[in-house]
Amino acid sequence: MPAFVSDADAMALALEQARAAGARGDVPVGAVVVHDGQIIAQAGNERELRHDPTAHAEVLALQAAAEVLGTWRLTGATLVVTLEPCPMCAGALLAARVQRVVFGAANTENGSCGTLYNLCVDPRLNHEVEVVHGVEAAASTALLGEFFATRRL
Amino acid sequence: MPAFVSDADAMALALEQARAAGARGDVPVGAVVVHDGQIIAQAGNERELRHDPTAHAEVLALQAAAEVLGTWRLTGATLVVTLEPCPMCAGALLAARVQRVVFGAANTENGSCGTLYNLCVDPRLNHEVEVVHGVEAAASTALLGEFFATRRL
Repeated sequence: MPAFVSDADAMALALEQARAAGARGDVPVGAVVVHDGQIIAQAGNERELRHDPTAHAEVLALQAAAEVLGTWRLTGATLVVTLEPCPMCAGALLAARVQRVVFGAANTENGSCGTLYNLCVDPRLNHEVEVVHGVEAAASTALLGEFFATRRL
Repeated sequence: MPAFVSDADAMALALEQARAAGARGDVPVGAVVVHDGQIIAQAGNERELRHDPTAHAEVLALQAAAEVLGTWRLTGATLVVTLEPCPMCAGALLAARVQRVVFGAANTENGSCGTLYNLCVDPRLNHEVEVVHGVEAAASTALLGEFFATRRL
């Protein structure tokens, strides 16, 4: 059995997914799902590729993880993502009963795990998600910066 | 060309989708997307059917609408749904740049279009969605009540 995957290892893979997304014209964001210490799913943003407003990296990674586990309840899972989730993706973490989210860069536009909202921690809701932030934030920000600089030329 | 579809007509169809979802063991919620006065997509909740935490009626209907229009930007579209959207689904409305959401029953558990949050109306975000509530609310509530009463026997 492979060694236990650290948050840093998972983030390195999420950054690879983000780079691949950017290379095909999607905003470079990548996500990985870790369960029982192993990576069980990974995805990059495919909004442009699929013409699908919901095809953010987090949603695709959660869908893939649910398929692997055969249940929509991703109890005990950690989602590692390069950019702080938007409202839809933070809501998807709740819907999937994810245990932890680890993100890189803060999302000043619509970040919903601490920046504009913290949907992950609200005692009125039926689930809470532990939030870890700032893992490889500079690498994530650099990828996004390069992407938008190129597109605005 | 068929006549312009009213919110009430669209809600009647959303209620049919909700009933079909309940009949197959999913929480009975249904959604319809109206664009240019016509119904272009409809879906019921398929969370249990697909074992997918993101397969709420709203997400499936938005995905289907994007496929019909060939773009993730559902500008000008109205989503009609039997129950007030959760954080994920309210976020999906923003992500898809939907113009209006019309819902039936208020969602006291995690409603995010006015009850616990109003993600649809926040000047900090890059998009706002007009919210209409209470259309056929009693019919939606009755369906949900019957569903949970049966399952708790």
